[in-house]
Amino acid sequence: MSTKLSVPNPSPLLIKEAERVKEASISLGQANDEQRIEALTVMANALNDSADEILEANLIDIERSKKEGLNKSLLSRLQLTETKLKGCIEGVLKVSNLSDPIGHRQLHRKLDEHLILERVTVPLGVLGVIFESRPDALIQIASLAVRSGNGALLKGGSEARSTNRAIMDSLNMGLNKSNVGAGSLSLLTTRQESLGLLRLDRFVNLIIPRGSNELVQFIQENTRIPVLGHADGICHLYVDDFVDIDKAISIALDSKIQYPAACNAIETLLIHENVADKFLRKSLPIFSNAGVTIKGDAKSQSLGVENPATDEDWSTEYLDLILSIKIVRNIDEAIEHIRKYSSRHTEAIATNDKEIAEKFLRSVDSAGVYHNCSTRFADGFRYGFGAEVGISTQTLPPRGPVGLEGLVTYRYFLRGDGDLVKDFASGDRSFSHIDLPL
Amino acid sequence: MSTKLSVPNPSPLLIKEAERVKEASISLGQANDEQRIEALTVMANALNDSADEILEANLIDIERSKKEGLNKSLLSRLQLTETKLKGCIEGVLKVSNLSDPIGHRQLHRKLDEHLILERVTVPLGVLGVIFESRPDALIQIASLAVRSGNGALLKGGSEARSTNRAIMDSLNMGLNKSNVGAGSLSLLTTRQESLGLLRLDRFVNLIIPRGSNELVQFIQENTRIPVLGHADGICHLYVDDFVDIDKAISIALDSKIQYPAACNAIETLLIHENVADKFLRKSLPIFSNAGVTIKGDAKSQSLGVENPATDEDWSTEYLDLILSIKIVRNIDEAIEHIRKYSSRHTEAIATNDKEIAEKFLRSVDSAGVYHNCSTRFADGFRYGFGAEVGISTQTLPPRGPVGLEGLVTYRYFLRGDGDLVKDFASGDRSFSHIDLPL
Repeated sequence: MSTKLSVPNPSPLLIKEAERVKEASISLGQANDEQRIEALTVMANALNDSADEILEANLIDIERSKKEGLNKSLLSRLQLTETKLKGCIEGVLKVSNLSDPIGHRQLHRKLDEHLILERVTVPLGVLGVIFESRPDALIQIASLAVRSGNGALLKGGSEARSTNRAIMDSLNMGLNKSNVGAGSLSLLTTRQESLGLLRLDRFVNLIIPRGSNELVQFIQENTRIPVLGHADGICHLYVDDFVDIDKAISIALDSKIQYPAACNAIETLLIHENVADKFLRKSLPIFSNAGVTIKGDAKSQSLGVENPATDEDWSTEYLDLILSIKIVRNIDEAIEHIRKYSSRHTEAIATNDKEIAEKFLRSVDSAGVYHNCSTRFADGFRYGFGAEVGISTQTLPPRGPVGLEGLVTYRYFLRGDGDLVKDFASGDRSFSHIDLPL
Repeated sequence: MSTKLSVPNPSPLLIKEAERVKEASISLGQANDEQRIEALTVMANALNDSADEILEANLIDIERSKKEGLNKSLLSRLQLTETKLKGCIEGVLKVSNLSDPIGHRQLHRKLDEHLILERVTVPLGVLGVIFESRPDALIQIASLAVRSGNGALLKGGSEARSTNRAIMDSLNMGLNKSNVGAGSLSLLTTRQESLGLLRLDRFVNLIIPRGSNELVQFIQENTRIPVLGHADGICHLYVDDFVDIDKAISIALDSKIQYPAACNAIETLLIHENVADKFLRKSLPIFSNAGVTIKGDAKSQSLGVENPATDEDWSTEYLDLILSIKIVRNIDEAIEHIRKYSSRHTEAIATNDKEIAEKFLRSVDSAGVYHNCSTRFADGFRYGFGAEVGISTQTLPPRGPVGLEGLVTYRYFLRGDGDLVKDFASGDRSFSHIDLPL
């Protein structure tokens, strides 16, 4: 998507659909834990029952996309094999096993006799989901939405339209048989609709983009609805001078090559000048063997790095087996560089000096700051959240990998017995503010 | 402020100032609890020492504003008496007594042996504060910023420019003597700067508006930086049919007249048709005695309400002794009306039927939903937060009255010993995800 596209106002039809989903989301949001778990089970069964139709629809999408010349990597994301679909269905059941994010009491306070304040988690309302190519994203997000009691307006890539339609029909068939009922999920089909979605402030509480950096950036720049996601993931590893070189090399290697297209892979390695020679002499052949192209600043070139890194490199997310290297005088220069170029996703330090490590952790304001481990750990599943709704690089919570808790908010309940503020204002009564058990 | 104003790009000078404050905020954010408390004490002392200069500067502002024809209510907000200033200084000390919002461990988890994940609260970074008239807001927000380890760019109303300058000089003098040092607070003086502030995404993490609904709305519509605040506060009280009429009347009265200009005062009263006659017969003279003008729908007019309420009334925040009344058939119609017109701030139900009350609490998605008590309780101090940074009507947390916790975010720290993701991907290691004590 080009950022030159203008965002149209939502059509009356889209507004009507959003109202319908909003309405349905309210009753879904009042379904209890058991009912939402049952709904997911029925959804998984429905997907199982419709497996043939879904796979056939996928073949249609694949055939058409091949003719239209869709590139290989997008084709492979689009393709839904039997195994992949099975995995998705297992995923739905896994989501049903996640603990309920709704109804948690976060605050419980007696303001005065018979005047009790509670803060309890509730669903957000309606999610707006925009995803590219992968039809499995539809299944995953639909199940996360139902688990958290949220409605969803979902817009998939047009190349996957037959598959998405078949999946959505199946999910709705399932929901229809469940106690929560259908209506809370709706598939948008036109590009106009996905653009109009960005202006549905009145109905949509959170936008979740799943796709390219360009897609995410376009969305972030063209909506006032909060967006859960990140455009770039420019992550750094800083290798300090008091360091175990072998450990640092394997952390760098894992952070770069374990899955270079991931947002939590590093793009830039910062090396303390005192260990640069030793580190590079040992690591350059290893990186080369692993197929990594190294680009470096002047100093690192003088130490054997073949390709020059320009200023542009420091702000480039390669998403590939390319790594830029900069030699720094000390941790302060490393922190300074990170402050300037990082997308505040995840940064790591390799050092045996605990004080230096703590300084790094205190000073670098990224969602994740690591000591002596790979940046690739920045992931909802690895953090033990059981699911990952997205990774956010914004400052306000939720940030970093976000699990189901990113799909809920809270509401304050205050229960009294005719209590009036004037009695407290006059001094006849006073607040006790006693916290009660949660 | 008119929404027709265009928002200019920040000037190079403003960017430089923002960079300076950002820089200073980083060291302030690393100051410990004790140092930030000491800073507040020194700030309070400095204000005490400069009291004469501040009050003199305020006289200059008052004189000029009188000549310029500033209206009475704005003049009274602008005026800083000795007593008012003393109250502000006490406020600074109260903020220093609030418990530290920084350094709270929210999550502590062993991912595997020697690989420990923590989620710890940290300052947001830099706050952008835009306030009108009241110079006391400057003192209050500056102290909240320092307490929470945040820098702040503050822009006050030009009518208070001399007072604000004197206050800021005094606060900086104090900070300079403290261990955290000066530089984290900066007063912006021109209107151009306050507009440019809205575009400082790179440096400013949260905008806090303190002023008219129009100001807040303008800011919300013209910045991509998160805004902590609310424009309208259209709150409702629904009087159910199974109700103690006297209790319901006093709740309605308190919700309307205890402080009608407050955002948490009600604008609309919804009354179940079964009790409308009885309720109105008893309450209309009481409202009239209290100086409240009542506007009503056709039904309530037939029951004695003199003035008609038009469709516009349902979406009007009077901020005055005016109340609109609508008779509804049942709780569902009440909830429907609230869904359509509420600004999702605070709504209340008066009923003796617990089930009906719980239905209302479950179905109304406002930040606060109350049973049998005044909507005027929606306030950070009354909730026991010790301070109120703002009240948010957005869906995502923080919503409702927000205390100091609204000025912090969190960071994930992961500490390992050379841990690599590939070992978990290969199955050589597996995640234990054991929660440790917080």
